Amino acid sequence: MPNPTIKNVAVVGTGIIGRSWIYVFSRVGCQTKVYDKDRSQLEKNITWFHETLRQDVLDGFSTPQEAEDIRSRVSGHTDLKGALSEAMYIQESVPERLEIKKAIFAEMDRLAHSSAIIASSSSGLDINEIAAGLPGMHRCILAHPYNPPYVIPAVEILPTRKASAEQTARAVDFLKSIGQVPVQMNFYAKGFLGNRIQYAIVREAIHLAESGIADVQAIDDVMCHGLGLRYALLGNFGVNNTNADGGIREYYNRFKDAYREGIGDLNCAVPSFSPDMIDRVAKGTEAMVGKASVKELCRWRDRLIRKICALKEKDPHP
Amino acid sequence: MPNPTIKNVAVVGTGIIGRSWIYVFSRVGCQTKVYDKDRSQLEKNITWFHETLRQDVLDGFSTPQEAEDIRSRVSGHTDLKGALSEAMYIQESVPERLEIKKAIFAEMDRLAHSSAIIASSSSGLDINEIAAGLPGMHRCILAHPYNPPYVIPAVEILPTRKASAEQTARAVDFLKSIGQVPVQMNFYAKGFLGNRIQYAIVREAIHLAESGIADVQAIDDVMCHGLGLRYALLGNFGVNNTNADGGIREYYNRFKDAYREGIGDLNCAVPSFSPDMIDRVAKGTEAMVGKASVKELCRWRDRLIRKICALKEKDPHP
Repeated sequence: MPNPTIKNVAVVGTGIIGRSWIYVFSRVGCQTKVYDKDRSQLEKNITWFHETLRQDVLDGFSTPQEAEDIRSRVSGHTDLKGALSEAMYIQESVPERLEIKKAIFAEMDRLAHSSAIIASSSSGLDINEIAAGLPGMHRCILAHPYNPPYVIPAVEILPTRKASAEQTARAVDFLKSIGQVPVQMNFYAKGFLGNRIQYAIVREAIHLAESGIADVQAIDDVMCHGLGLRYALLGNFGVNNTNADGGIREYYNRFKDAYREGIGDLNCAVPSFSPDMIDRVAKGTEAMVGKASVKELCRWRDRLIRKICALKEKDPHP
Repeated sequence: MPNPTIKNVAVVGTGIIGRSWIYVFSRVGCQTKVYDKDRSQLEKNITWFHETLRQDVLDGFSTPQEAEDIRSRVSGHTDLKGALSEAMYIQESVPERLEIKKAIFAEMDRLAHSSAIIASSSSGLDINEIAAGLPGMHRCILAHPYNPPYVIPAVEILPTRKASAEQTARAVDFLKSIGQVPVQMNFYAKGFLGNRIQYAIVREAIHLAESGIADVQAIDDVMCHGLGLRYALLGNFGVNNTNADGGIREYYNRFKDAYREGIGDLNCAVPSFSPDMIDRVAKGTEAMVGKASVKELCRWRDRLIRKICALKEKDPHP
């Protein structure tokens, strides 16, 4: 059972990322105050959280008693001051626009406990811009989750340039203590780490489909029945390290010419994302997916990922 | 239990790919004749196969009786004619050089049963060049596995331009019947599908490490504790389809500007793979991996992948 290093947290903003954070914190024992200025939005997403808890009981991920305990740790608030009153870790997930993020950060910095950590879920903005000029800029940090964070452990971390190592460690240690995997960046890059890798995959996958080399189903099959099975366990360098008996040095030395040639052959054009392109790729995807709804697919994905994570926990990386 | 549509097969060449194919065929009930012109190479790799069987009994993947049955279906041969005498499907895995592949294909085409399928494991050559000019070019096909094929189901398929749909279907149906996932390409592209996607990932991962945005461990963590968990279940388009309630159309329409911008920001330079670059990346990888040997890591990877595949079999894509 996780033992969170911080017991009182706040979730600010309840979109699809914010509402998932409610679950991340409350299930490990944190008292979780949830803020949204819009009462109907707040209620809708707390209802979503309750439904997710119910579904998890049905799927055997928790007992009814555990679900009730988790539920009891969460309260909804439409006043920010009340929501932040006891929080020592605040996770912001308001809409992804710089002026909105800046405004809520200014307010949070003014209202929060002076040593509370204020983390942003932003997937694309620079935390140094979001927190620019705030008295508490040093305690602001980027903590970008992958969707949904109660299923996917990775959280990308970027401290502001005013942060101390101690403050960053406090945020990182807290996220580790609740079972997430904080992944630290050294400076800002558009798309951070994971989305940059995803951009590279999207570009080549669309190129393969658009150039007619293979259809959508084949491109996806080679990932989910091939490459992707390894990436659930090892990252790029870990995979390369297991591709030769002598590890990554032998592998790169042996295949460096093939890699230089192969990488040089990749198409670097940016896909158009024109209506026609989207339509072609979407038709291929719809033909592949068949009748399953996005909701069913997501539920399946999340159920299986949790089981994969449980396998890894039981039999961890040597 | 799989029911192979072809009962007699041959494995030609016993490197790390060839020896894995022995297991793929024999475990589903195929009589498997294994050819290598070099007797010591042949014996070494049949010994590897026996050891893998033993390890699988220890790991609970098969019973001693099953392992004995699998073992009994395999015989080693140093004469090609004898090895091919009954085979209706032949999987070639000799070294990856065009002149070597061409020579063995000419011999196999001459010696094999006239309606046997002759498949190449080549990871980079064009089957149309390997089989160019052969009387039996129509029955030659590329069937490129991912390593190791007894763990990773995906097999990339490219028929020659002389193949008939019926011949391709016969090869595809056989691979499906033994539990592999054939992935069909429409024409040759350097790196086929999976390695092209892997090239794109390697390029961006090395760029992230070399530019100092993050260290090797962070880049790998975002994959194996983030993106990669999804790719074990869904390919690029399947993931994109589950990223918005309205599926891939909504997702691409909503995020097309972010994608165009993000993809446009990727570095397209080809990594140098210079001794210094390899050394830096290898040091990061070695620091990440710690004391585990490549052999231990591979055994862990393969054990876990088989369990992930079993989860997917039990609870398949809706």
